[in-house]
Amino acid sequence: MADPHVALPHVVIVGCGFGGLEATKVLDGAPVRVTLIDRSNHHLFQPLLYQVATAGLSAPSIASPIRHMRRHQRNLTVLMADVDAIDVQAREVVLGDGQRLRYDHLIVAAGATHSYFGNDQWQAHAPGLKTLADAFQLRARLLSAFERAETLPDAPSREPWLNFVVIGGGPTGVEMAGTLAEIARHTLRDEFRRIDPGRAQVLLVEGSDRVLAAFKPAQSAQAQAQLERIGVVVRTGCRVVGIDEAGVDLQTADGTRERIASRTKVWAAGVAASPLARTLGVPLDRAGRVVVDEQMNIPGHPEVYVVGDMAAATSLEKDGSRKPVPGVSPGAKQAGRHAARQILARLQGRSEPPFRYRDYGNLATIGRKAAVADLGTVQFSGFSAWLFWLFVHVYFLIGFRNRVRVFADWAWAYFTFQRHARIVVEPRPGARDDA
Amino acid sequence: MADPHVALPHVVIVGCGFGGLEATKVLDGAPVRVTLIDRSNHHLFQPLLYQVATAGLSAPSIASPIRHMRRHQRNLTVLMADVDAIDVQAREVVLGDGQRLRYDHLIVAAGATHSYFGNDQWQAHAPGLKTLADAFQLRARLLSAFERAETLPDAPSREPWLNFVVIGGGPTGVEMAGTLAEIARHTLRDEFRRIDPGRAQVLLVEGSDRVLAAFKPAQSAQAQAQLERIGVVVRTGCRVVGIDEAGVDLQTADGTRERIASRTKVWAAGVAASPLARTLGVPLDRAGRVVVDEQMNIPGHPEVYVVGDMAAATSLEKDGSRKPVPGVSPGAKQAGRHAARQILARLQGRSEPPFRYRDYGNLATIGRKAAVADLGTVQFSGFSAWLFWLFVHVYFLIGFRNRVRVFADWAWAYFTFQRHARIVVEPRPGARDDA
Repeated sequence: MADPHVALPHVVIVGCGFGGLEATKVLDGAPVRVTLIDRSNHHLFQPLLYQVATAGLSAPSIASPIRHMRRHQRNLTVLMADVDAIDVQAREVVLGDGQRLRYDHLIVAAGATHSYFGNDQWQAHAPGLKTLADAFQLRARLLSAFERAETLPDAPSREPWLNFVVIGGGPTGVEMAGTLAEIARHTLRDEFRRIDPGRAQVLLVEGSDRVLAAFKPAQSAQAQAQLERIGVVVRTGCRVVGIDEAGVDLQTADGTRERIASRTKVWAAGVAASPLARTLGVPLDRAGRVVVDEQMNIPGHPEVYVVGDMAAATSLEKDGSRKPVPGVSPGAKQAGRHAARQILARLQGRSEPPFRYRDYGNLATIGRKAAVADLGTVQFSGFSAWLFWLFVHVYFLIGFRNRVRVFADWAWAYFTFQRHARIVVEPRPGARDDA
Repeated sequence: MADPHVALPHVVIVGCGFGGLEATKVLDGAPVRVTLIDRSNHHLFQPLLYQVATAGLSAPSIASPIRHMRRHQRNLTVLMADVDAIDVQAREVVLGDGQRLRYDHLIVAAGATHSYFGNDQWQAHAPGLKTLADAFQLRARLLSAFERAETLPDAPSREPWLNFVVIGGGPTGVEMAGTLAEIARHTLRDEFRRIDPGRAQVLLVEGSDRVLAAFKPAQSAQAQAQLERIGVVVRTGCRVVGIDEAGVDLQTADGTRERIASRTKVWAAGVAASPLARTLGVPLDRAGRVVVDEQMNIPGHPEVYVVGDMAAATSLEKDGSRKPVPGVSPGAKQAGRHAARQILARLQGRSEPPFRYRDYGNLATIGRKAAVADLGTVQFSGFSAWLFWLFVHVYFLIGFRNRVRVFADWAWAYFTFQRHARIVVEPRPGARDDA
């Protein structure tokens, strides 16, 4: 382990999502040695993960090997490893194999996982969408549901396989529901002999009174109208009170219960911070996020930063008020950059001004030509918003080659309605190895 | 299940590899109804599967959804289902869910699986390469081995992670070993800080006295020289007598034993016919293949055909002799076409002439610019053979769009040494969900 920088301060970054990657970049060339630890070998462009789950993109289009992306950063060592705990007293990161890694400065950016609000038994029946493995599992379930329906002898047995329930009306739920409706109506048209995929029902369930709650009410209404136009049934003010293999139990505000027979459910309703947060021994909020100060530090440890979906951070606004930083990729990127800059500032005996979040607005896409955009001063929706969404997402995608590939895939999909990644890789539940 | 063709003879085809797909195509427009059953939703271009395993191609590039490929064939129903058994007395196919499907004519083309020659405990440590799931598992193991080595503190603990053993010197073993050596020496260069991937050792073990035994001895020697030039250590006349998590036990012809410490083993040594063959109740050869007659029929059942890797078929040569049909894709395609044509002939009270295999030759690739070709009358190797290999494989690949994608990926890989699909999707063994 001949390391010429061994005398330099050691910065350890846990997690290579948007926050960790930006922090790593800021430290390029700085007089520190950096160790970036992630449990996967790739940085994932999570905003397009739903496209992998719905067979529009292949995994390599939205994922890049971390060590390849950062191969020119000479002060960086990349480790693919699990992080089991953080020992803030000893200033050590505990890896999955028991190794301990000492740090001088630490940035924790381990992201979030799904939260089933205490109903962990729902997970097996309604998987969420955070990793590539999740996306492959969902893709296999969605495509296999139509396949299974085609093998069954009569309409009543097929129906539960042609009912899809998406739980949660945030951006991911809206994207999933809209894309699913398009797959059923367009992509699969004319390919089945016994079933009509166009008669599949996609139900979007949202507990609050509107979808896309982060947007203005008028835009929520536009999004709902666009969803309904492409065939999604939207149920707002409707809570999920039960999920099992065969269906979903819903309850409306007035207490009415309803059972939906559905074999395929998608969870897009809740997230919770990585359980790694608990090992820091500091106060967490209700979603398990670490409450950080204006420098992204935890209390009493100016050498430990938490950024991104793991952190409950606030932004100091121009009027002196404090606003929560939203759990979106620009928030994670900006916080990651801030933490890295603060490390460099402290090494020079300085301090950065308090973190201020630059809000570029909100974007959500609904289908192959609809979206809603809220840029603060201006709101728009429909085709123009979709083009804007497309541009922004392809622009921010990692790597020139991935941009070209994704753009080509989308152009193809747009004109042919086809989705090139309609491949079920995962063995289906109950599949045998020998037939 | 309103089917206008219900009075027509029912042809059931089990398996949509090269044999089943060709048979399906021949029956397009014929006065039969066709049901094609496969346990996956895609046809796989297996000759390039090793490219998915070695991160050169993404899965959708070499796999196409069956029902999309054949959506215009109006007399075809595609079912994604497991086939558990064939009841030749009742003329029924038994599906995994217990449904029975009656046939008038049956083509069984369920392919082959790995054979560990009675040592099934080796499978967990040295996976083979038959399906996309296999390829993803192998890709994860290969890439994770370098990652794991980078996390370890010293050379002795890293070494077993940097030793790769490929077992079997046929085309798949040669392709895997050659590509692995290139990944270590070129693709990963400069991306690690603690290890030098170029010092990884790739060992190719072959039991007989030369690699690529289907080629002429001079070509085997050329292939071995090309492998050694790119850094593969080739051990012929060397049998594997033990495989466990930590390594491989080898034994040479004179009885000398040797232990190789290696965490990553690839099995490319043996195949056996699908176990479905056993349910037919007819004679099998040593590899579990169904012995078929000159029409690809099983004894006593002119309505049942077995084609491809599941069949031990012979070809009637011009001189009246019989030659075994090799287990390669042209053999499966020709046999599948023959079986379908014979079904149509029998419906007209005719019979096809006995099956004759048209041998176009043998091709095997070694690395990014070497290959060997044996076209019967002419043999060549090196760069010209590689260009020929490239042309043939891209030409026969399913679908125009896939051809363009694969060609673009290869052009990129050729000039940059990069492999775009270097993504570990599968959770590593022992990986935790919550870190």
